[in-house]
Amino acid sequence: MPLCPADDSFAQTLGAALPPDTLRPAEARHLEDPRGRWSSSATHVALPRSVQEVAAIVRACNDARVGLTPIGGGTGLVGGQIPREGPAPLLLSLERMNAMRAAFPEEYALVAEAGCILADVQSAAEQVNRLFPLSLASEGSARIGGLLSTNAGGVNTLRYGNARDLVLGLEAVLPDGQVWNGLKRLRKDNTGYDLRHLLIGAEGTLGVITAASLKLFPRPAATGTALLTVTDPQAALSLLTLAKGQIGDGISAFELLHRTGFDFLRATLPEIRQPWPIAPEWCVLIELGLSQGQNPQDALERLFAEAHEAGLVHDGLVAHSLQQARDFWTLREHIPEANKRIGSIASHDISLPLGAIPAFITKATQALAGIGDWRINCFGHLGDGNLHFNVFAPEGVSKDSLKARSAEVTALVHDLTHAMDGSVSAEHGIGRHKVADLEKYGDPAKLAAMRAIKSALDPRGIMNPGAVLRA
Amino acid sequence: MPLCPADDSFAQTLGAALPPDTLRPAEARHLEDPRGRWSSSATHVALPRSVQEVAAIVRACNDARVGLTPIGGGTGLVGGQIPREGPAPLLLSLERMNAMRAAFPEEYALVAEAGCILADVQSAAEQVNRLFPLSLASEGSARIGGLLSTNAGGVNTLRYGNARDLVLGLEAVLPDGQVWNGLKRLRKDNTGYDLRHLLIGAEGTLGVITAASLKLFPRPAATGTALLTVTDPQAALSLLTLAKGQIGDGISAFELLHRTGFDFLRATLPEIRQPWPIAPEWCVLIELGLSQGQNPQDALERLFAEAHEAGLVHDGLVAHSLQQARDFWTLREHIPEANKRIGSIASHDISLPLGAIPAFITKATQALAGIGDWRINCFGHLGDGNLHFNVFAPEGVSKDSLKARSAEVTALVHDLTHAMDGSVSAEHGIGRHKVADLEKYGDPAKLAAMRAIKSALDPRGIMNPGAVLRA
Repeated sequence: MPLCPADDSFAQTLGAALPPDTLRPAEARHLEDPRGRWSSSATHVALPRSVQEVAAIVRACNDARVGLTPIGGGTGLVGGQIPREGPAPLLLSLERMNAMRAAFPEEYALVAEAGCILADVQSAAEQVNRLFPLSLASEGSARIGGLLSTNAGGVNTLRYGNARDLVLGLEAVLPDGQVWNGLKRLRKDNTGYDLRHLLIGAEGTLGVITAASLKLFPRPAATGTALLTVTDPQAALSLLTLAKGQIGDGISAFELLHRTGFDFLRATLPEIRQPWPIAPEWCVLIELGLSQGQNPQDALERLFAEAHEAGLVHDGLVAHSLQQARDFWTLREHIPEANKRIGSIASHDISLPLGAIPAFITKATQALAGIGDWRINCFGHLGDGNLHFNVFAPEGVSKDSLKARSAEVTALVHDLTHAMDGSVSAEHGIGRHKVADLEKYGDPAKLAAMRAIKSALDPRGIMNPGAVLRA
Repeated sequence: MPLCPADDSFAQTLGAALPPDTLRPAEARHLEDPRGRWSSSATHVALPRSVQEVAAIVRACNDARVGLTPIGGGTGLVGGQIPREGPAPLLLSLERMNAMRAAFPEEYALVAEAGCILADVQSAAEQVNRLFPLSLASEGSARIGGLLSTNAGGVNTLRYGNARDLVLGLEAVLPDGQVWNGLKRLRKDNTGYDLRHLLIGAEGTLGVITAASLKLFPRPAATGTALLTVTDPQAALSLLTLAKGQIGDGISAFELLHRTGFDFLRATLPEIRQPWPIAPEWCVLIELGLSQGQNPQDALERLFAEAHEAGLVHDGLVAHSLQQARDFWTLREHIPEANKRIGSIASHDISLPLGAIPAFITKATQALAGIGDWRINCFGHLGDGNLHFNVFAPEGVSKDSLKARSAEVTALVHDLTHAMDGSVSAEHGIGRHKVADLEKYGDPAKLAAMRAIKSALDPRGIMNPGAVLRA
């Protein structure tokens, strides 16, 4: 049976059953896609203040067969928060549920509601002298609920894991409106199936995460940052192996950067200072976070010396002040903005087995050259095998004249990724943008299991219809 | 519709369709419970050599509505591998699927079949100069498939996580016989629901894990071990906080030990040397694994000095040789054997929020004193909030005379654990022994979701019937 739209009449009825001002016409911030590619079909948003109100909203939608799309900070890049087809769902924003419920510094844990902005969670951890390590470009607006629902990645995954690895427990509303009180703060708990990991990464299709008990970590006693010029991606990978052997867990980030990124920065954001007149073909940004009694600068100098000796690294800059470290990160963090200003033909968020990355970059570059003239900005979280392999029109050629070839370019990149045992969505998720990719590349047994789970937990298909799985 | 038994006729038909010697009468090692509490009702075992044979066996069981109980090394403590009620299922042992399929040292990954013994996986990692950190008392016989299906814990969880945290990808046969080829070696992969974490910890009720791609880690450059006498559990917890602040990720293990454990060792295993004439009331065993340029002995001496100054630690021994470190661990690792020789009235594998542990130990001890005279051996992985809180008859009183009170003791311990937001199964799982506990203490919304998932993926209920969820 098809879903019904969240129209004025439904919104009025539901609104009347909830505290004033809970149901509202959706505002721009609820509807915008960060890259301006898609328009949301939704017209109403629910803004609950408590898990009980979330449960009442979910129950009402389930009873009335109305779709419900949970939204976080709206920073997702695959359209999971932008319903477009089918009857318009109700949007559910947890922006008012933004309390830090409690901090447990002795336990290295913190309980935050889903509407908390990531930067605020980082600050709350810092206030109790702890680290919440999830960190990504949109941390000033992305919210915990969305970050967990999409299993966000970011720059610290190498050391601390993905968002799912940072969660001890969840509170969530399941599609039938039942509240799962799973906010445990336990490091070991083997009591049945791991619902937590099922909801994390499900992009709101199996329920609504309303709060999370999050893992905190010791703050590193000292950090160190270096920008090292490497011969090629294989040298970058060998450098990573060398660094792990020398420094172990102390490596927080290991980012690969290509010259194109620096060229784009120079062209679109010239106010950002660059350390070189001409950027190297490939370089690596390394961040260390070490405990007491260790000196990160020394560790980086030692690494540089050995890597230089081994012919992996030509040149390099070890930051000798926090400001210099911040400057290095400013470069890295503005590459997405520079890409946006140049305007890509096709962007790819892919991952590969680490050992396959050098061959992938060579093969993908060659294959693309075989179908046209392109600029490629390949950068990303090398430590995690996660590349953002983005393709642009050649200099002087308008983006629009080549935009029609986007699908062809993506098919080439994704086919090769899949053939090399990679993933066509490393950290951004499936959303609506990659549903066909999941159908094309996903394991058939896994897809069948996913559909069976979706039908079992959400038999009416109200939760974020059309995201991840075709509605 | 009820299940059919795996009787001679079924075994003969299935055996004829498979290579010779795949179906066999079950042997003692397939039937034994490590604590000798339960007898398996199974009579036949399948011993496949490949994932295709596993799939054929699962399909045959599904078609014939015959239950299938996967078994690993048989070291589980909650009877997950010991079917007792209902029609006898076929046992499925993957002991012949024990190949290390490939090692990828550069990627810090290794692909092992489910039948590999944990100690062999540790050795395979060591051969490529890497660490596979899962470590527990039964590592010489426990197999990867069982360890993942039960999400095993052990002594290194504090640093490296539970078994589930060590898995990059899985190959598994789902209950309808489909093979999920999910053996990816990716650190980031957001393509749909996380089937991996659903199968891990499901104790064979949602499918059969046939191989896993496992995470490896750098081997610590140097390790250090210390046995420190603490005032009480609160002091142990404060010591942990202090240690994390000083040493960060470098703490691999942090074990709490009570005097009773040492008394039991002295009584039952007098050949094991003890470092004191009279053991302290409470002590902590700490293990560090540090990277290049750090000295674990120095770090432990520094920790001891500051903890002594703060009144947390009275006395202590820092191991000054590998032999001494091994001796400390020998004490810890033989406590379960000493417990077994003394014979417990009731054993409990519980976890609590770290901050609640001191209060829990006080309250549980007091409450037990209110219902009788007992000896308590409370020890465990304090760093993970995981206690083995085991209750024994007083000295001179026979175990058998009090065995009838086992359920009463367990109810007291579990009720208190639950009331203090803990878990009644920290690392051993539910199996068959704790099904009623899960029903009593489990969150109703989670239980309903678990039942829905089980029905969706295994509609005939063939996979390990009666484990985790009531058949």
